[in-house]
Amino acid sequence: MNHVRRIGQLRRRMTKAGLPGLLATHLPDIRYLCGFSGSSAALGVTRRHAHLFTDGRYAAQASEEVCGATVGIVKGPPAVAAIEWLRKQPGANRAAFDTSATTVAELSRWRASLPARKRMSFLSELAEPLVMPLRMVKDEDELALISEAALIGCRLFEHVLGIIRPDLREIDVAAELEYKARQLGAEGMSFETIVASGERSAMPHGRATTALLPRKGFLTLDFGIIHKGYMSDMTRTVYLGKPTVKERDTYEAVLEAQEAGVGAVRGGARCGDVDEAARSVLKRAGLAEAFTHSSGHGVGLEIHEPPRIGTEQSDRLVPGMVVTIEPGVYLAGEFGIRIEDMVVVTQLGGKVLTPAPKALIQL
Amino acid sequence: MNHVRRIGQLRRRMTKAGLPGLLATHLPDIRYLCGFSGSSAALGVTRRHAHLFTDGRYAAQASEEVCGATVGIVKGPPAVAAIEWLRKQPGANRAAFDTSATTVAELSRWRASLPARKRMSFLSELAEPLVMPLRMVKDEDELALISEAALIGCRLFEHVLGIIRPDLREIDVAAELEYKARQLGAEGMSFETIVASGERSAMPHGRATTALLPRKGFLTLDFGIIHKGYMSDMTRTVYLGKPTVKERDTYEAVLEAQEAGVGAVRGGARCGDVDEAARSVLKRAGLAEAFTHSSGHGVGLEIHEPPRIGTEQSDRLVPGMVVTIEPGVYLAGEFGIRIEDMVVVTQLGGKVLTPAPKALIQL
Repeated sequence: MNHVRRIGQLRRRMTKAGLPGLLATHLPDIRYLCGFSGSSAALGVTRRHAHLFTDGRYAAQASEEVCGATVGIVKGPPAVAAIEWLRKQPGANRAAFDTSATTVAELSRWRASLPARKRMSFLSELAEPLVMPLRMVKDEDELALISEAALIGCRLFEHVLGIIRPDLREIDVAAELEYKARQLGAEGMSFETIVASGERSAMPHGRATTALLPRKGFLTLDFGIIHKGYMSDMTRTVYLGKPTVKERDTYEAVLEAQEAGVGAVRGGARCGDVDEAARSVLKRAGLAEAFTHSSGHGVGLEIHEPPRIGTEQSDRLVPGMVVTIEPGVYLAGEFGIRIEDMVVVTQLGGKVLTPAPKALIQL
Repeated sequence: MNHVRRIGQLRRRMTKAGLPGLLATHLPDIRYLCGFSGSSAALGVTRRHAHLFTDGRYAAQASEEVCGATVGIVKGPPAVAAIEWLRKQPGANRAAFDTSATTVAELSRWRASLPARKRMSFLSELAEPLVMPLRMVKDEDELALISEAALIGCRLFEHVLGIIRPDLREIDVAAELEYKARQLGAEGMSFETIVASGERSAMPHGRATTALLPRKGFLTLDFGIIHKGYMSDMTRTVYLGKPTVKERDTYEAVLEAQEAGVGAVRGGARCGDVDEAARSVLKRAGLAEAFTHSSGHGVGLEIHEPPRIGTEQSDRLVPGMVVTIEPGVYLAGEFGIRIEDMVVVTQLGGKVLTPAPKALIQL
């Protein structure tokens, strides 16, 4: 990972915005900028220097991981130390902070740590995010890791297909999937594994429970792993037994919608248009009301990042972005179906990173 | 879980604080108050009514889970819908929000959703938290779940003792532990499992890596599970091979410190005094500098909750609180040791919820 280049890109954005200093406290931003992956940190960046503050628990880890910034170990809140450091840097008469990553309570405490004459002037709200736009467009190193993460996901799906059978508990499926993920080197799961079977598949976010897999019905698996900090995310819905005509037709509609969404991904496309490409298929099938969420989201160091692929989103896709395309249909009391891929944006179109089969699998 | 009683307790606190309305957006608070466990929600509470807002993905789940509040499904941000609802309640001329759970950006958006004349007056900062003081003191239902969660943790420790051997990878230990957790019914892990062996044990938060367990050296296991929403948290450090005198003496000092900390827990004790009980043992052993963090924290619906068992913390323990006691010693380039129990506060003392052996285990 070229952290030095990333901090350089950030500095150019700071110069453009007329900002002498930046306080980064959102941990994925910090990891992106300087490589530190601990759970307590603040990073101060000026036009010339970058300094990471963390606490004593992370002294060894910080010296192992951090690149492009010096490291300070502090006893109190790292952000307060970073603010004090920023104040002392030549020419740094103010520092911007990220309003989306700062609570109202934190801001009060930070202000209280400043001398009275600087209390209201030193910390300024960022007019627009500075780090996220960099993070949204993945570089080659990141794309390699995300692609590896996505392929591990596909192997997991293939693996659990071999164990799924009626009367297994949903949590047994989750256990097997997560065990195999660890064996394949995953650092953990990127979110709570969703294993939702039978009527429970109508819950888009149905956690794995002790419910038994049905002899006949859908089973939705939505899961992801963490691989060197990067997240994967994919969903497949399979069928146990033989589906009815309605079940099969609905599955086909979701698959067609998903493929239309993937087909609409390319550099320059409006996110709202990509959403509409998927949504319009379900509208034509009379399933518009049953598709209760947006079509996808960015993914990287966080499981949900911008851009959002949702109705009327006017942001445009840029080559190097990685997004999910995941339409679904949920019929309460009956069943639910969702199909999700990770897709990297290129100038010519979308490249699917999760090439697991999508035609309806009957087990 | 008696959610109706909890909302009643909250209302009494609101009345005492002169508050006609409360906006709860912190998800563990929402789960505590009304049982909803989805990832997108806001709860409005007045003296007479409570209304939960979530989005379409959670319609089925909300009607299954929510108790003591009515449910509304909305398309936009749940918090904005809750604020609109609060405004329309008789007598609710303002509503308090939690400054620790609200970002600066959210507050701006919420204010922008209000009519101009109410923009600065309707939402008021909570002078002190209203829900956390309730959550800190666990009721019987909660203590039963937390105790079950802690015992599952102990069974996991016992289980992995059977597989630990030199040349196994750290991630294999994590995989086995997490697989077994799922088999025992855990919903997931409460944080990223720490498996740190040999010199890596000197990193208090060493993630499981592909490093091989040494033929001779410490192995620290710090892990927890989620059981019906409640977290467990425990640490044990074992030895592979035969420890040196220094290693054994250091272990004994940490164990003595840990037991002194547990011994200081009782209703009415100052958190700072509990910390000092553990810390002073390590000071006497010349290890004060090597104990780089605080002695513990509350645990419940979140893995880190108040109170903090740290230096000079003046908060007092109350019967029903559940805290960790986890002193550690970290010698960079050599080894690290940490021992952690969960302890429930009673009037007479602390009751350990994690009765796994603490005398040094040699494997």
